[in-house]
Amino acid sequence: MATIFLYEIAGTAMLTLLGGGVVANAILGKTKGNGGGWLMINFGWGLAVFAGVYVAYKTGAHLNPAVTLGLAASGGDYAEGIPVTFGNTIAYLLAELIGAFLGAVLAWMAYKTHYDQETDPGTILGTFSTGPEIRSHGWNFVTEVIATFVLVFVIIMFGSTPSGLGPLAVALLVVSIGASLGGPTGYAINPARDLGPRLAHAVLPIPHKGGSDWGYSWVPIAGPIVGGVLAGLASFAF
Amino acid sequence: MATIFLYEIAGTAMLTLLGGGVVANAILGKTKGNGGGWLMINFGWGLAVFAGVYVAYKTGAHLNPAVTLGLAASGGDYAEGIPVTFGNTIAYLLAELIGAFLGAVLAWMAYKTHYDQETDPGTILGTFSTGPEIRSHGWNFVTEVIATFVLVFVIIMFGSTPSGLGPLAVALLVVSIGASLGGPTGYAINPARDLGPRLAHAVLPIPHKGGSDWGYSWVPIAGPIVGGVLAGLASFAF
Amino acid sequence: MATIFLYEIAGTAMLTLLGGGVVANAILGKTKGNGGGWLMINFGWGLAVFAGVYVAYKTGAHLNPAVTLGLAASGGDYAEGIPVTFGNTIAYLLAELIGAFLGAVLAWMAYKTHYDQETDPGTILGTFSTGPEIRSHGWNFVTEVIATFVLVFVIIMFGSTPSGLGPLAVALLVVSIGASLGGPTGYAINPARDLGPRLAHAVLPIPHKGGSDWGYSWVPIAGPIVGGVLAGLASFAF
Amino acid sequence: MATIFLYEIAGTAMLTLLGGGVVANAILGKTKGNGGGWLMINFGWGLAVFAGVYVAYKTGAHLNPAVTLGLAASGGDYAEGIPVTFGNTIAYLLAELIGAFLGAVLAWMAYKTHYDQETDPGTILGTFSTGPEIRSHGWNFVTEVIATFVLVFVIIMFGSTPSGLGPLAVALLVVSIGASLGGPTGYAINPARDLGPRLAHAVLPIPHKGGSDWGYSWVPIAGPIVGGVLAGLASFAF
Repeated sequence: MATIFLYEIAGTAMLTLLGGGVVANAILGKTKGNGGGWLMINFGWGLAVFAGVYVAYKTGAHLNPAVTLGLAASGGDYAEGIPVTFGNTIAYLLAELIGAFLGAVLAWMAYKTHYDQETDPGTILGTFSTGPEIRSHGWNFVTEVIATFVLVFVIIMFGSTPSGLGPLAVALLVVSIGASLGGPTGYAINPARDLGPRLAHAVLPIPHKGGSDWGYSWVPIAGPIVGGVLAGLASFAF
Repeated sequence: MATIFLYEIAGTAMLTLLGGGVVANAILGKTKGNGGGWLMINFGWGLAVFAGVYVAYKTGAHLNPAVTLGLAASGGDYAEGIPVTFGNTIAYLLAELIGAFLGAVLAWMAYKTHYDQETDPGTILGTFSTGPEIRSHGWNFVTEVIATFVLVFVIIMFGSTPSGLGPLAVALLVVSIGASLGGPTGYAINPARDLGPRLAHAVLPIPHKGGSDWGYSWVPIAGPIVGGVLAGLASFAF
Repeated sequence: MATIFLYEIAGTAMLTLLGGGVVANAILGKTKGNGGGWLMINFGWGLAVFAGVYVAYKTGAHLNPAVTLGLAASGGDYAEGIPVTFGNTIAYLLAELIGAFLGAVLAWMAYKTHYDQETDPGTILGTFSTGPEIRSHGWNFVTEVIATFVLVFVIIMFGSTPSGLGPLAVALLVVSIGASLGGPTGYAINPARDLGPRLAHAVLPIPHKGGSDWGYSWVPIAGPIVGGVLAGLASFAF
Repeated sequence: MATIFLYEIAGTAMLTLLGGGVVANAILGKTKGNGGGWLMINFGWGLAVFAGVYVAYKTGAHLNPAVTLGLAASGGDYAEGIPVTFGNTIAYLLAELIGAFLGAVLAWMAYKTHYDQETDPGTILGTFSTGPEIRSHGWNFVTEVIATFVLVFVIIMFGSTPSGLGPLAVALLVVSIGASLGGPTGYAINPARDLGPRLAHAVLPIPHKGGSDWGYSWVPIAGPIVGGVLAGLASFAF
């Protein structure tokens, strides 16, 4: 269980450090990547997963409660030698949340001078958590369910396809989901990736930050969990 | 035959969900990827194929009537253990069309709030089906023949080249065709990818949608079939 | 020798069809990729090599006189079972030139309606052959020598490095050279890629085309040959 | 030791030739890639590493004093058959610096005509060395520490993860770090990559060049060394 903690915290911290970083680079003022565009953000998040998966490879590199719960629903193991038990499940979920929080703090440190000069609260929050472009909790939820279903279902299908890509396959899948399904809500597709940085946003001393939009925060938690579990169940047909 | 149905429907739905999604993200109003550009669309469609191929790997992941008919013309099998028979051919073609329709419906659901606010009929149709920038059915047909020839011919040549890329090779080939040959017609290169979503466009309740441009619809069906079969025949020389 | 002809013509035609296509898409009017940018062109050419290498894999997929002559200088074989002989060398060079010409004609056919509406002669020529942004034959030559040295030297070094990338490695190398060293001259790095399409430009019936800039045409022939041979010689030290 | 010199000089020269080249292409006037954007720069540097790693594969392809010192701190060997000794360490560090200098000179030659017409000293220096967007030596140092920690830590973790990507894995990691953590300081993450080209800038006869900003130069040396050594130490826990 200590192994799960160590690897999943480190991997998920790598994920939100690099993922939060690319959004900060794209939208905070005066950065070299300012205005870099959506495709840069997609590659940034995809490769954040890439790095995170290498780091947490030993424990299956879930990095995401939707993956943890989706795997549980699919009836497989969490990783080689790590069975699905209540204790292991809690360890994964906690480690993912803690790691996501720590990664967001590190991204904030890397961009500290740019955060200090940023005056738009929406831009600041956007580098931490997701938010919808058109607010409609019901349809935003649907979008997150569909996008996370794709993530977890295809990851499960990786298992039955020979390919030598390793962590690159998951990375490219995340680039794909971002480019294709990230338009309405910013593709949380991972409750920890959204909640951890939102907590960091709430506690970090950032000038001009506004509220952490807790009213929306249930959508990127519930949507990915439902989508992940549906994918795990759907995999029984294949 | 049930296996062909299940896998090819799921794979082709994955294809048009992610492929339709990236176009919706790029051109519908207020999305996060609005104005993301042609390269984002190319990567989006290429990775849509990537995900779809993993899903339908067991049945050879045709996802495309031009591939099905091109393989038939090339004299090979449809997939390991699936010979070319009339019944199997019909199963592939039907599954591809049904899957493409379903994926388009899912993409519409994911972008529902953005479709509801979109007022330009051409933009709406453009997220479902292809259309030419300069309308000339003859030359548009030629473009689709050439682009689909490239797709099917290179896929067949994959078989004689050792490489550990698996589904990534097809994905990159589709990125290539989009960037290089997608300029005039939007690279249908797949009759199901165009007809399935066009049917979805015709039946879905979308405000401000216009006609489904059935006058053009034969081009992205006939062109890819001719290109695919030519590629299958050409492969005999290699 | 017939095998060399068949495969190298087909592979090089694939190269300039997709390579010429991406430039046409990026700079001709009214295309879907108009203004797609340099990175799209880099990926387009890189993946054009990717597709071409699969097609011509059986004969080593030179697709480029600089590679043919660089390999000859390095002392290796042209491909498994194809030794360096005078006859084989001529076969490669001729096939590369013929293939490059044919691919350019196909790209023109794919973009026929856009060529017909284009009125700027420089834009038209730019979709066929390379040309310098700042004309200085001496320094343009230097740029092509350096860029082609990188191409051929790294390809030779691929041989001593285990990796499962196959044709993707060459494709990414070409993306790299385009992004990094293509700025001054448009990275011909391949005499056939430049001369074949320049001949096509000279003979095709394109409205508003101007001259084919034969005064510059020796630079993208001589530069790549010198760079390729230097790389072949340099490889003896490694 | 001669082997270390030969391969690491060649590999690091390849790195800064292609890395310096992509920045020159993106920001010098009249280049074909002018305004190509941050993602093009990220891919350019990532693939510069890709090419450099193939070239220097035989000696472990450090190309970077932070990697050399990080590996020393992690307790592993420098490469197969090359143990960590004082002499070898000096050989790596010197070769990296010399190679980085030579690559920058070659990049300047490739873009000679564009350098001659450039009149902004900041743009000229920016194609050689890194510099912060918001100058704050302390926080700039923090950014470089974090970014280099990611580089060296994930490279070390590569060793315990099966994947067939070879040099592509490092290349993608560098694309990731550039997109995600390059925004504030331009991601030196390599003392040689910054110091070598800065020395080249100081000595090359470039019209309108200004000073070489030596006041900042310690940050991209000290930050990467600290980050690399911390990563080497952290790897003991995994």
